[in-house]
Amino acid sequence: MKIEFEPIGIVHSPFKEPHGMPIQPAGARGIRGSVEVFEEFRPGLKDLDGFSHIVLIYFLHLSRGFSLKVVPFMDTEYRGVFATRAPKRPNPIGLSVVRLIGIDDGVLEIEDVDIVDGTPLLDIKPYVPEFDSQVEVKTGWLEGLRNRVTKWNADGRFVA
Amino acid sequence: MKIEFEPIGIVHSPFKEPHGMPIQPAGARGIRGSVEVFEEFRPGLKDLDGFSHIVLIYFLHLSRGFSLKVVPFMDTEYRGVFATRAPKRPNPIGLSVVRLIGIDDGVLEIEDVDIVDGTPLLDIKPYVPEFDSQVEVKTGWLEGLRNRVTKWNADGRFVA
Repeated sequence: MKIEFEPIGIVHSPFKEPHGMPIQPAGARGIRGSVEVFEEFRPGLKDLDGFSHIVLIYFLHLSRGFSLKVVPFMDTEYRGVFATRAPKRPNPIGLSVVRLIGIDDGVLEIEDVDIVDGTPLLDIKPYVPEFDSQVEVKTGWLEGLRNRVTKWNADGRFVA
Repeated sequence: MKIEFEPIGIVHSPFKEPHGMPIQPAGARGIRGSVEVFEEFRPGLKDLDGFSHIVLIYFLHLSRGFSLKVVPFMDTEYRGVFATRAPKRPNPIGLSVVRLIGIDDGVLEIEDVDIVDGTPLLDIKPYVPEFDSQVEVKTGWLEGLRNRVTKWNADGRFVA
């Protein structure tokens, strides 16, 4: 079974390559970028400007092949790739919650951007705490490391 | 540009069709389901059992075609599809944060399941509040309706 998607837009950011990028929006506070939604899809943006945060789902287009075990950023041990946010996944799909600053003529101005420039966008969803937020959680191997994410930048380990 | 994905597994749930389903995990509290990860991808599940919640990204396989303006569940007005979680999207990608109860031989037992039985799974990510949670938010047209999501079930409006 093959599932086929087409980009609905392109993400623009100050990051021309993964190396040196923040590894999550939490480490990218205040970093501005934009999302250019292709003209044919722009009517679908109606009412989105009422939301302060949006979920971007995108194609990790620089990821080549995948590994089922990876040594994630901030760690020194091999972990199952589904227990990490590493990009070398069987289906290289990225997920970021970013701040929506404004929408002008099909271009979304966004903040807290941890996405490489030129990334093909697959979907935009409104961020809704009742749907997306969990507070009492356990986070396995990331417990104790989570708070360090703001100080950590990507190296080249997941780039071909 | 075509982007091709292949399922890594299948979601099983008590919902044989969208009609009557809860419309978000918040409305599906306690409802059990499972994720069967295909054998070749199971090594990627290592360490996932330390997480209490996971993000499932899946193919909304019952969605046919898309609409850029939809009347969402709980609402009576046309909204831009990207300002909603409606399934008739240009790329029909679903996103749910569910509770992980346990993993046994490649099968994930999950709770708070708002996903129709037989849904092809694209990706699993660990849920990490520092990455995924935002507390101070504005939610546009959903403001004032969000709390009602636990009492609302899907009708057939987005099924072909």
